[in-house]
Amino acid sequence: MINKLVENIKKTGAPIVVGLDPTLALIPDSVLQKNYKEYGANLEGVAKAILEYNKALVDACYDLIPAVKPQIAMYEQFGIPGIIAYKETVDYCKSKGLVVIGDIKRGDIGSTSTAYAIGHLGKVTIEGKDFRGIDEDFVTVNPYLGTDGVKPFVDVCKEEKKGIFVLVKTSNPSSGEFQDRLVDGRALYEHVAEKVVEWGADAMGDSYSYVGAVVGATYPEQGKILRKLMPKAYILVPGYGAQGGKGADLVHFFNEDGLGAIINSSRGIIGAYKQEKYANFGEAAYADAARAAVLDMKADIEGALASR
Amino acid sequence: MINKLVENIKKTGAPIVVGLDPTLALIPDSVLQKNYKEYGANLEGVAKAILEYNKALVDACYDLIPAVKPQIAMYEQFGIPGIIAYKETVDYCKSKGLVVIGDIKRGDIGSTSTAYAIGHLGKVTIEGKDFRGIDEDFVTVNPYLGTDGVKPFVDVCKEEKKGIFVLVKTSNPSSGEFQDRLVDGRALYEHVAEKVVEWGADAMGDSYSYVGAVVGATYPEQGKILRKLMPKAYILVPGYGAQGGKGADLVHFFNEDGLGAIINSSRGIIGAYKQEKYANFGEAAYADAARAAVLDMKADIEGALASR
Repeated sequence: MINKLVENIKKTGAPIVVGLDPTLALIPDSVLQKNYKEYGANLEGVAKAILEYNKALVDACYDLIPAVKPQIAMYEQFGIPGIIAYKETVDYCKSKGLVVIGDIKRGDIGSTSTAYAIGHLGKVTIEGKDFRGIDEDFVTVNPYLGTDGVKPFVDVCKEEKKGIFVLVKTSNPSSGEFQDRLVDGRALYEHVAEKVVEWGADAMGDSYSYVGAVVGATYPEQGKILRKLMPKAYILVPGYGAQGGKGADLVHFFNEDGLGAIINSSRGIIGAYKQEKYANFGEAAYADAARAAVLDMKADIEGALASR
Repeated sequence: MINKLVENIKKTGAPIVVGLDPTLALIPDSVLQKNYKEYGANLEGVAKAILEYNKALVDACYDLIPAVKPQIAMYEQFGIPGIIAYKETVDYCKSKGLVVIGDIKRGDIGSTSTAYAIGHLGKVTIEGKDFRGIDEDFVTVNPYLGTDGVKPFVDVCKEEKKGIFVLVKTSNPSSGEFQDRLVDGRALYEHVAEKVVEWGADAMGDSYSYVGAVVGATYPEQGKILRKLMPKAYILVPGYGAQGGKGADLVHFFNEDGLGAIINSSRGIIGAYKQEKYANFGEAAYADAARAAVLDMKADIEGALASR
């Protein structure tokens, strides 16, 4: 799947992943009201509205982008109906040829991590027949529990030719609280990065490993160090746009080949219609506004990479 | 909810939480086959078997124990039907007066952590009406992302009078890989423990905080240190039984008042019927075997606490 991700990025020329992170505040009111009328003003109604919103966004952008990253928390928020909308979103995006990165930040120990890995990337065998649970292409994984928390994911990835992105240095303001602490003279995130290299060493695609890393756009200096530490790891970079990251901050996340990083934007794309810059689209054309925002983001990153 | 947990522990005299972590290998074959026949040999069939198994275990043990801890990974493994079985298990356990600790190990940043907190502990408001998603009483939380990943959970806990257990020192063999690394001369888990105290300081129940900690039974020496570092934090202790922890290892996790810790056992209880010790019950009486294992575990811990 890392090969497909790289191919999709080359094909579209856009190292961009759109974060499908729906909230009640982002979904246009007309979409909400329509679904409330049809399914009720309840969790089911919201879940159906989410799916309609996501599908319209995907329809408007799928030819421009290699991948999407639905954030499962935004769906779990709405209980079982929300999680069903997550699954339906995953399936719909895959049907459009997009690589789906499930932003699930799971992580546990041994057989429990195996269970997460199976549920999200693999399959269970029931009476000799295989069944798949949520079935994303990639998921994000939290490394706090160490190798025996992460390895079960890698094992399933090898079997399924899928991948993970391990949280190394997250984009939030307090990520440094633990991640930046010095251990033997180096930040903890560097030690995690070394493990990412180790975990991914025997799980290689054509040019990049099945095991990637998450490094926030909001920390460009750390990105520079981490890019060098993990040359074969694809870096998933959140924090562009709404969280403050700009194209110029991102150049060091890429390798010399122009590959190696994929930049996420969520609100900046899916909520573009709410920004002054795209206000002329109007609420009804929210998907067209998202498309325009993708094109602008692509140009911003292209420009930054061209002038490095 | 921390007050209810303490009350339940006092009432039952058992600082025990039963881990409802169903796997295909643990569910008796007769239960599986019955549900396959009724609902199909597929994810739905397994999910229905899980629910039947859990209900029988709960019916057999609920008067002996204060709480249960379903591990959501074991349900996510079976996709949407599995997650529905998780939700139904949560509801059933609550209807029996048990405190439900959702072992979900979630953790993200800002608004995303808020979404997880709302989905599992809180409520969403849709057109002026409140709806609850999964609605556990407590959940476990991963601290790797720092304060702005954990605080949104604490905020929802304060509103709902619910609680969290933050991963401090996990029970698995490689937990030391990052958690034990020395930062300013002290293990990282001690720094996390200090944050647990800080996060929980203004979220107090009658005698313990809404913010507890997870510390593995497999690390009794660390348990001793962490008990002192976090006097007002309830400690959720996994790793008893199948993972190797024994009653005598656990005494230092408790405060002088005999409170402050709750010990989890999963396979050791719910799969008791598979152990030589309880083999005489037979597969059909798996729930009675679980009850016997709870009583033995209670006696083991009582004995250890009495002789300290």
